[in-house]
Amino acid sequence: MTAPASSPLPTPRGFPEAELRARTAAAQARMAEAGLEALLLTTEPALRYFTGFLTRFWGSPTRPWFLVIPASGDPVAVIPAIGAHLMGQSWISDVRSWSSPEPGDTGLRLLSDCLVEKAPEGRVGLPSGPETHLRLPLSDWARLRALLPRHHFTDDAEILADLRLLKSPAEVAKIETACAIATRAFDRVPEIAGPGVALDQVFRRFQMLCLEEGADWVPYLAGGAGPGGYGDVISPATPAPLQKGDVLMLDTGLCHDGYFCDFDRNFSVGAPSPETVRAHARLIGAARAGFDLARPGATFADLFGAMNRVLTPGGTTPGRLGHGLGMELTEGPSIVPWEGRDLQPGMVLTLEPLLTLPSGQVMVHEENILITPTGARWLSRPSGPEIALLPVPEAAKAAP
Amino acid sequence: MTAPASSPLPTPRGFPEAELRARTAAAQARMAEAGLEALLLTTEPALRYFTGFLTRFWGSPTRPWFLVIPASGDPVAVIPAIGAHLMGQSWISDVRSWSSPEPGDTGLRLLSDCLVEKAPEGRVGLPSGPETHLRLPLSDWARLRALLPRHHFTDDAEILADLRLLKSPAEVAKIETACAIATRAFDRVPEIAGPGVALDQVFRRFQMLCLEEGADWVPYLAGGAGPGGYGDVISPATPAPLQKGDVLMLDTGLCHDGYFCDFDRNFSVGAPSPETVRAHARLIGAARAGFDLARPGATFADLFGAMNRVLTPGGTTPGRLGHGLGMELTEGPSIVPWEGRDLQPGMVLTLEPLLTLPSGQVMVHEENILITPTGARWLSRPSGPEIALLPVPEAAKAAP
Repeated sequence: MTAPASSPLPTPRGFPEAELRARTAAAQARMAEAGLEALLLTTEPALRYFTGFLTRFWGSPTRPWFLVIPASGDPVAVIPAIGAHLMGQSWISDVRSWSSPEPGDTGLRLLSDCLVEKAPEGRVGLPSGPETHLRLPLSDWARLRALLPRHHFTDDAEILADLRLLKSPAEVAKIETACAIATRAFDRVPEIAGPGVALDQVFRRFQMLCLEEGADWVPYLAGGAGPGGYGDVISPATPAPLQKGDVLMLDTGLCHDGYFCDFDRNFSVGAPSPETVRAHARLIGAARAGFDLARPGATFADLFGAMNRVLTPGGTTPGRLGHGLGMELTEGPSIVPWEGRDLQPGMVLTLEPLLTLPSGQVMVHEENILITPTGARWLSRPSGPEIALLPVPEAAKAAP
Repeated sequence: MTAPASSPLPTPRGFPEAELRARTAAAQARMAEAGLEALLLTTEPALRYFTGFLTRFWGSPTRPWFLVIPASGDPVAVIPAIGAHLMGQSWISDVRSWSSPEPGDTGLRLLSDCLVEKAPEGRVGLPSGPETHLRLPLSDWARLRALLPRHHFTDDAEILADLRLLKSPAEVAKIETACAIATRAFDRVPEIAGPGVALDQVFRRFQMLCLEEGADWVPYLAGGAGPGGYGDVISPATPAPLQKGDVLMLDTGLCHDGYFCDFDRNFSVGAPSPETVRAHARLIGAARAGFDLARPGATFADLFGAMNRVLTPGGTTPGRLGHGLGMELTEGPSIVPWEGRDLQPGMVLTLEPLLTLPSGQVMVHEENILITPTGARWLSRPSGPEIALLPVPEAAKAAP
């Protein structure tokens, strides 16, 4: 194995304390409007958004983690002792921790004391809308409400979703770095994929390329391969070898400093059929049409329409044609016909046109863009209309 | 980059339909005892346990996924259309899907119809205990209950947790394969780490080794490095270069066919200090003491005690000293002093002794074992008492 390229750190890790404080102040301004005394947060992106707390340990479901944003003053982290050292390196000075796991309590007493202190009138908001969940066992959720019978838990008035929608320059820089890493890895796919290589080996080797090009980790890789297209876009790899005539698609969400890219590339194994050439060009045309329309004031529905007119003239492409992107592989809103919200500068989006082929298979393409004050900017290096080629060696061509 | 070793597939991918049917039947037998007409499942491991549905797409929080286990008959998958093709390849024949995202509904009408059909008397169990959560926005949870005002949602009587506790031979084979991959990758750490190498590059290169040795992906890597120990065990890597006298710890949860290993290794950068030698040997001694005690009939508390006597004679080590392992990086139960349940054949556990050093830093060690009918079997290749060495090159030794 060759050594990876030297550590690519074009942007400083983490965020300045001032940015994390500004996020908190922005939340508190919205909380005042909504009449909330506190926000109660339980999920990875929610805690990280305000504290900068970055760890892969959320893969362990054992322990709950809580962050309380009060109406004024600094957030309080109520977390298991195993995280106290790492949280202690953040800007959060009020870190309350308990030895976890522990019989019975699981931190709920500590949390309820904190909520009594920070929300004496009991008006607590929790993210409850689309794309959220409560990362707490239902039994503990019932227990918490029993500990706080006079507290009233409501939704968070979409405060967190709204704040996360608009990325700061520092956030954009991290996403752009992730995109650049994936762009370089996609450029190198011909090194690792070709006729006869098993799809699961392509997946392994592609993840190695992502790491070699500087990814911190590769939380997402899906794709497909088949003659002229593939059956879906979320399957894991099989050991089936790539064959001449296959279209290979790799879709990756890799991370740089906790921020994702999310885009894909298609490859033709050997010379593409005329149908594949046309389908790929149409996907690219749709992404370009989306990009050309994307600007502040246009709506998500407009963006859907621009791509849909290329993909499904006179009809409606099923599903969505892209989504928000940032701290998670996918974020809201979706690019769908009924999403009337405006595009705004600072939004980072994927454009994800999909074609269903006459065979019933699909082909998808995906790019990442930033909405700017005057239009949009590519964060992924956009693909041209010609599908990339994985050449068939001369010897293989001659074989029966 | 050299080519990875040929695809290591010592066990067939997935599970025979008979095994998935047997899991369902076992759940149904327990449901009958508990008086439940249906189980409602929403999380990745829960759906996969019964269906075999394996995808990394759960990283996208946009869409809910549901599986309904009826009192008799086959499970019903109520899932977004984007998953219908992949679920269609499973043994589940009743797949009900909706175009998602969709305004308003998000599948709840389809789900409530299914629950009316499968649980006409309204007795529905949901996993609600330790280590669970409901993967559904709170607003949708309220909406579902409003759609089904006569249904009574209760906990699942720990049915899912109990079933998952005992691994089948096919599950054990997958975990053992993951362990073997990680064992090989750990053996190669001296290829990629040594004095002067930045810790974040060590993390990247180690993940590449895991993939090269056959991991499908590497969902978890944490660790630390510092003089004689490290501050915690969940931090991401910094760009600080390794230095002579550092102890480097790498802790990985890599996946083979959806099953995890979870163990770590310590390395001394240059010759270890006598304190490091002693601390490492003590950790290994604790893991061995746990292994020697582990057998059916001993309790989790006994297992804690055996390790604790080596680590903290006369006292109690804080936190837990291991946990279950399988479809998730960590599973219940925890190895803690108050866990009175018995060890049983088929349990897969981590033994994870921890020492707090006089400096306040920590050292941890971790191995993976299977409880057998007569004792235990190592799944990771157990470390010896001597800490592994990352040699300091002669030139570096001579430098000031």
